[in-house]
Amino acid sequence: MRSCVPQDENFERRIRESFSKQNLMKTIGATLSRVLPGEVEISLEFRDDLTQQHGFIHAGVVAALADTACGFAAFSLMAPDAAVLTVEYKINLLSPAIGESLVACGRVIKPGRTLTVCSGDVFALKDGEKKIVATMSATMMSIRGREGLTG
Amino acid sequence: MRSCVPQDENFERRIRESFSKQNLMKTIGATLSRVLPGEVEISLEFRDDLTQQHGFIHAGVVAALADTACGFAAFSLMAPDAAVLTVEYKINLLSPAIGESLVACGRVIKPGRTLTVCSGDVFALKDGEKKIVATMSATMMSIRGREGLTG
Amino acid sequence: MRSCVPQDENFERRIRESFSKQNLMKTIGATLSRVLPGEVEISLEFRDDLTQQHGFIHAGVVAALADTACGFAAFSLMAPDAAVLTVEYKINLLSPAIGESLVACGRVIKPGRTLTVCSGDVFALKDGEKKIVATMSATMMSIRGREGLTG
Amino acid sequence: MRSCVPQDENFERRIRESFSKQNLMKTIGATLSRVLPGEVEISLEFRDDLTQQHGFIHAGVVAALADTACGFAAFSLMAPDAAVLTVEYKINLLSPAIGESLVACGRVIKPGRTLTVCSGDVFALKDGEKKIVATMSATMMSIRGREGLTG
Repeated sequence: MRSCVPQDENFERRIRESFSKQNLMKTIGATLSRVLPGEVEISLEFRDDLTQQHGFIHAGVVAALADTACGFAAFSLMAPDAAVLTVEYKINLLSPAIGESLVACGRVIKPGRTLTVCSGDVFALKDGEKKIVATMSATMMSIRGREGLTG
Repeated sequence: MRSCVPQDENFERRIRESFSKQNLMKTIGATLSRVLPGEVEISLEFRDDLTQQHGFIHAGVVAALADTACGFAAFSLMAPDAAVLTVEYKINLLSPAIGESLVACGRVIKPGRTLTVCSGDVFALKDGEKKIVATMSATMMSIRGREGLTG
Repeated sequence: MRSCVPQDENFERRIRESFSKQNLMKTIGATLSRVLPGEVEISLEFRDDLTQQHGFIHAGVVAALADTACGFAAFSLMAPDAAVLTVEYKINLLSPAIGESLVACGRVIKPGRTLTVCSGDVFALKDGEKKIVATMSATMMSIRGREGLTG
Repeated sequence: MRSCVPQDENFERRIRESFSKQNLMKTIGATLSRVLPGEVEISLEFRDDLTQQHGFIHAGVVAALADTACGFAAFSLMAPDAAVLTVEYKINLLSPAIGESLVACGRVIKPGRTLTVCSGDVFALKDGEKKIVATMSATMMSIRGREGLTG
């Protein structure tokens, strides 16, 4: 289903540079835990300042992790001068996001010159168990030649 | 399209209490700027620590505002003892979220005993102009009688 | 929110020609009831051979009407040599599709050179009343210069 | 990720009965090619009267197959007296639906008492090759005790 040959052999470096410029990821304490061609994983330790009213990690944070993992998964297969933007995503929240940490895994389902379709899953790790908390499908767009948009 | 008679006359107080318990909203500096039956607005001043790699407000923040506005719009029409959970949402990102501030408006499209369907729009305010940056459709669920879930 | 100046003054003729080539629309008996710049309406008489197991019009038909209305709404604002393809859509089914007829209205929310975002609503007409049965958000893509894809 | 123990040992018979009442499936010539707990496959031979303007199978048909496969996948795990309704779905159209036939496979991702989340993929079979043409995520609802809604 995937065609995961990167056009840019330095894709991991580009992704790590771009991730480090995402202030929100710093603000919420997310880290880039795995970078492969067409597959990116982002991790987050549970923090009390990221919760919603029931004490679960807020859906907005869950979605931000999955969206970012999907975006970089798409980016890993794009041309060296491309920037990536999220066109849209849909997320189903399957279980409360509680536990010691969250891991979001984004994967390319269908790469394309302009649009890349990804899917992402977010898991909560709790007491040594891994439970799916959300699943996302996303459309990413490759932008080239637009001033100021790199990475 | 809407049937906006609240079942609980104290809906605004319940929403403000619940919002104040959403730590993420505090963390990102969001405020509840408008509460009506079936319609809730949340505002956010631009902050540099909430950006993605191109300096726009991160889609995760945009989505969190819209999701929260939709959730409380649904909540405003629910029974006094109900809690609200997001089942799913889909968001289209229409323009970069740049400007002085963002306003997310969530509205009930179809209320229901168990499920309520909402739509949300997020606008950026910049130099006196208001521009749509994202549009969401969301399904919210009313949960009753589950211990620990109120608001 | 919309910028509805057609690039092609013959947009209505192009839409009617393209619609007439959609065999599925003929098969299910749908008609193009209204064509405006950025807004298209499709109508369908209730037919027993289009139902699901409970006797309602099948969600697939409801979605096909909304998708087609959204696609042509986007197409109405595209260049004369463009073809339109659906990238993705999401649909919420709000009420059973029962009644004498259905009307699907698609509107452009955000036109773009490559991608156009639309929203669509489907209404059931029954005993003189109009009731919303589904709401859709869709991303449409303009394809140019690809052999065999016109309309 | 799945918990696929059917509550009703006669789930396959219930699904086949319900499918046979879906007039639309008859109208478009779809068949129920595989029924497992939590997983259902529906097949369709290419037919010229189901196309859109470029000669591909219309997205509405592709979506109807995936939606129906997901709905029955959810239904296979529901209580014997439950009916199933589609709450919402999102579909990404990945490639033109061309070929000798289509196969839609729906799977339960997360079963639940009220809501069941499913994912579905649609493949085109052409010249002995199988290519993904669409991917769906869907929320299904179990309805019990509502007169006239069975299956």
